Amino acid sequence: MLGQIRIVLIGTSHPGNIGAAARAIHNMGLSDLALVDPRCDPRDPEAHSRASGADILIETSRVHDDLGEAVSDCTLVVGASARARTLPWPMVTPRQLGERLPHELASSDSRIALVFGREDTGLTNVELQRCHAHVHIPTNPDFASLNLAAAVQVLTYECRLAWMASTTGATTDTVAQSPAPQAPLAIDSDEPLATHEELEHYFDHLERTLTDIGFHDPAKPRQLMARLRRLYQRTRLNRMELNILRGILTATQKCTNHGKHRPN
Amino acid sequence: MLGQIRIVLIGTSHPGNIGAAARAIHNMGLSDLALVDPRCDPRDPEAHSRASGADILIETSRVHDDLGEAVSDCTLVVGASARARTLPWPMVTPRQLGERLPHELASSDSRIALVFGREDTGLTNVELQRCHAHVHIPTNPDFASLNLAAAVQVLTYECRLAWMASTTGATTDTVAQSPAPQAPLAIDSDEPLATHEELEHYFDHLERTLTDIGFHDPAKPRQLMARLRRLYQRTRLNRMELNILRGILTATQKCTNHGKHRPN
Repeated sequence: MLGQIRIVLIGTSHPGNIGAAARAIHNMGLSDLALVDPRCDPRDPEAHSRASGADILIETSRVHDDLGEAVSDCTLVVGASARARTLPWPMVTPRQLGERLPHELASSDSRIALVFGREDTGLTNVELQRCHAHVHIPTNPDFASLNLAAAVQVLTYECRLAWMASTTGATTDTVAQSPAPQAPLAIDSDEPLATHEELEHYFDHLERTLTDIGFHDPAKPRQLMARLRRLYQRTRLNRMELNILRGILTATQKCTNHGKHRPN
Repeated sequence: MLGQIRIVLIGTSHPGNIGAAARAIHNMGLSDLALVDPRCDPRDPEAHSRASGADILIETSRVHDDLGEAVSDCTLVVGASARARTLPWPMVTPRQLGERLPHELASSDSRIALVFGREDTGLTNVELQRCHAHVHIPTNPDFASLNLAAAVQVLTYECRLAWMASTTGATTDTVAQSPAPQAPLAIDSDEPLATHEELEHYFDHLERTLTDIGFHDPAKPRQLMARLRRLYQRTRLNRMELNILRGILTATQKCTNHGKHRPN
């Protein structure tokens, strides 16, 4: 399980932090380090000094040009985020992240990336929006900025605890209660949830539109609408999201109507 | 509660470790640092550099000649220990330590010391035997030696979690497990999850299609794609669902292309 977790460091400036992160990762029994666009030499002597014997992690780390390349094979991408964003995103605590791991990694094909940003500015909004969820390490609000390697230490520690619980069965309760592999992630937002009625209007609109564009044949429905219902209902759409989705359907229908109204 | 916990570092050699420990302590909202017989200057510039703004912890730290003096007023002394000792001693895990804190510190007169040893040799047997209990941070048995500040980070993190749980009147478990108001729902399916790369292809395809149908203007993106990313990423799409969604986009594009190819 620990071998399926990749630590991704973006734009790191200080080689010492890469070394210290490598040490923390190796200490916790993880082995996959990826560096995206490092702003220093990961083979700097300071990196090896701080790695303090975990040089193998630095030597086997891969360097990528961008985040997408570093996490392309990952089934869950979680970004470490210190700040509350203007657009709320699914958030997990480090402990909740650990509790999800056994199920998230039940398939040997699954890969998780834990993504850490720059020492000075963290992750950009674009990078944060590439993540399924954000993880926030609780800190003193008056002094909130953790050292990069310290943040890596906390999250990899939670990974190790979760792995120990899953292999020893010592805390089977926790494991039994951990979320299912495809459990969606929650967002905490002031936007009200869509009501059942609003969702039903959406599904009506969706089915009509899919029929208009020739993707759906109500006479041969197979499981299409059932799958789409399941997808959108488990997502717990809020009202603004529903308005966007309905706007897309209306714009789609306009295009098809334009086509239809023109002579062949 | 956090103000009743003292971090005691014995015989530290590297001023950088004192600075990094001070930063971790301040990050987690603790404020009491004691140094016993340091083997370096705690006011060294390297200490202040690694403290990264937590200089107040270094400035207010007290230096003692021996452990007994540093913990004389403490009602519980817990030593961080990497090794199993010949004489078994009460052991707690970091999490068990956190769980004890609210009870141990219920009286405002109570003080707890968490004691950390030298970078090279840890705590001596005499020092370990001055402790009520030992705490062991689980590590990779092949690479077990944590950096001093990393060990301080893990234990103070557990202290902070315990304090947060005690102030909300819940246990750490229930805090971690209480679902957010908009928590999505899980499905249990054998269908493999979509990878990051597959999702990125979908988002590319989605953005192009929304542009084609005139719903999206990449020059004035506002938060449209961010909102759609958040929606579909938190849903944890499986591969079949992703194929359906891409099929819908392709069918939509066909309609708009039909429109475009006709003369006006």
